[in-house]
Amino acid sequence: MTKPILMDINHTVFLSGNCLHLLDRRLFPQMIQEVRCYSYEEVAQAIQDMVVQGAGDIAIAAGYGLYLAGKNVENAGTLGTQVGRTFLQLARNRLIHTRPTGFHLKGLLDKMMESLEDQSSDWPCKMQAVLQRAIKKQQNRSESTGKRAAEILKDGDTILTHCFPGAGLLYMLQYAQEQGKEIKVIATETRPYLQGARLTAWGASELGIPVTLISDNMAAYCMSRGMIDKVFTAADRIAMDGTIANKVGTFQIALAAKYHQIPMYILGYGGPDRNTVTGDAIPIEFRDPNEVLQFHGIKITADKVAGFYPAFDLTPGDLVQGIITDKGMYTPAQISLYWSS
Amino acid sequence: MTKPILMDINHTVFLSGNCLHLLDRRLFPQMIQEVRCYSYEEVAQAIQDMVVQGAGDIAIAAGYGLYLAGKNVENAGTLGTQVGRTFLQLARNRLIHTRPTGFHLKGLLDKMMESLEDQSSDWPCKMQAVLQRAIKKQQNRSESTGKRAAEILKDGDTILTHCFPGAGLLYMLQYAQEQGKEIKVIATETRPYLQGARLTAWGASELGIPVTLISDNMAAYCMSRGMIDKVFTAADRIAMDGTIANKVGTFQIALAAKYHQIPMYILGYGGPDRNTVTGDAIPIEFRDPNEVLQFHGIKITADKVAGFYPAFDLTPGDLVQGIITDKGMYTPAQISLYWSS
Repeated sequence: MTKPILMDINHTVFLSGNCLHLLDRRLFPQMIQEVRCYSYEEVAQAIQDMVVQGAGDIAIAAGYGLYLAGKNVENAGTLGTQVGRTFLQLARNRLIHTRPTGFHLKGLLDKMMESLEDQSSDWPCKMQAVLQRAIKKQQNRSESTGKRAAEILKDGDTILTHCFPGAGLLYMLQYAQEQGKEIKVIATETRPYLQGARLTAWGASELGIPVTLISDNMAAYCMSRGMIDKVFTAADRIAMDGTIANKVGTFQIALAAKYHQIPMYILGYGGPDRNTVTGDAIPIEFRDPNEVLQFHGIKITADKVAGFYPAFDLTPGDLVQGIITDKGMYTPAQISLYWSS
Repeated sequence: MTKPILMDINHTVFLSGNCLHLLDRRLFPQMIQEVRCYSYEEVAQAIQDMVVQGAGDIAIAAGYGLYLAGKNVENAGTLGTQVGRTFLQLARNRLIHTRPTGFHLKGLLDKMMESLEDQSSDWPCKMQAVLQRAIKKQQNRSESTGKRAAEILKDGDTILTHCFPGAGLLYMLQYAQEQGKEIKVIATETRPYLQGARLTAWGASELGIPVTLISDNMAAYCMSRGMIDKVFTAADRIAMDGTIANKVGTFQIALAAKYHQIPMYILGYGGPDRNTVTGDAIPIEFRDPNEVLQFHGIKITADKVAGFYPAFDLTPGDLVQGIITDKGMYTPAQISLYWSS
């Protein structure tokens, strides 16, 4: 069986020459189409327009954006000049402001910017090396998080997912398969962008896992009928107090899971953000209200109706059973220990 | 201002000659189109296909279906014969099995069938009279329920709705307006049929009420930010123990409301079903899974993915603050008193 391409970021976000290729996740899997970016601004626009999604993958795409900006500086003969540095600073700021809720974006870009600090002329190489290490690290984290998550699964489990929890979910399912466990997935469609319908459901079904799609409003019903054994989502940011910022809808699924005493697990990959002490410090991104008022360009409501689109919500840690990271599982209350273990 | 047509069933479900006209609520308000039915079977099919929605309105449409069957019997010269009665029994059974969760359907059809019992030849007239009384009663109930519900609203309230809670919601908003209260509505879109986006949002906005549409997964977020003062939904059936069967998604909104200590009210119109003692006796309708896998005929997921579509869910009474009926408000625990008051 070929691996679903969503399991390896090098298949969906990659450079050839001076062009960044991005699989357009808004159309996938119905259409396999790329968005090609030749400048950091094009990358920023693509990130903002949801061509790529998931806090980790967004960070990598942004990193490539900064790399392209570096190439511009190099090609303009402004390497090592103040003009070059200012241009890069501007590109960094633009890229960081595309999606405010995830923290991986800022972390990676700032690390790449450190390459400029010693004023040596080989910063483009250093920058590229930082990016390559981040890609490798993210890939390893997906695999190790998936492996640890698979240990939690029992033969016969049906799991509920919301949005696309990243490659770690697919690794989890693949490892569980290899262990001979039969797992079923119920995926929420995840309005308005349908990441659950398009990415999670596709990816899991490509692995040969039976997948059932439900509307976002059916999660509590399924739980009440004993159809769900465990809930899995990712997090766009985890605060040091264990608050989970993730795709809007996660919070109400967590409330329903708690009510039904169904354990909910977060694929936490590289752990919490050390700079975010509490959940209320996490900025929630508000997207264009029109995205809620239409579907595939078809208006779904009356003209006088406004829209509202918070892209993420905050789930208090006490609704969550465990946060699974590349270093192991933590309770939300103890997630800050990730950084001392 | 003209009344939104959803406030009066005589505008969306009406007979002319031997033809039942049904406003096609699947297309409304984007398109104003009718489905015309000349036989009970066409009516049954239209009900099943969601041309009409809401337990009360479905019952009226089905009542007209039975009336058309009666006309067939009359036209065939089989009035008062065993053949005629059998035909009507068959029509009743077919109509009842279109949508199993609501109870108004069976109640009305059985009352209409009682017209046959004394074997007199004027049963078509009697049947029609039963139907006309039911329509009048439903209209009165919508108005009185809406009036009582308006008393609960405070100036400045923002209410959250799910699905289309029927004409009572629009009357509530209109009475509140007349009382000088400024009310805002946040409506969930209500996947997969988008009754919230199309019917509730349209109806409320036609009354000049500010309406904001959200995806079904955003309710808990809005509550957590203090955006919602009260929640209002209807019920397709209320059990005597106070359990609420309503459009799927109601349950998880109720859980989120309880968590945030936001009162949730049910527009209960004509009260609970005396024949349904507890919630677990309410059959949940499962609709064609394909309805979840597509949107306006556009496939939203991968081919190997299955769908699951429970059309309703059950909300335990203890999550609900009050059930507002034409006779006043009851706590769910005391809703059975509706029938003794």
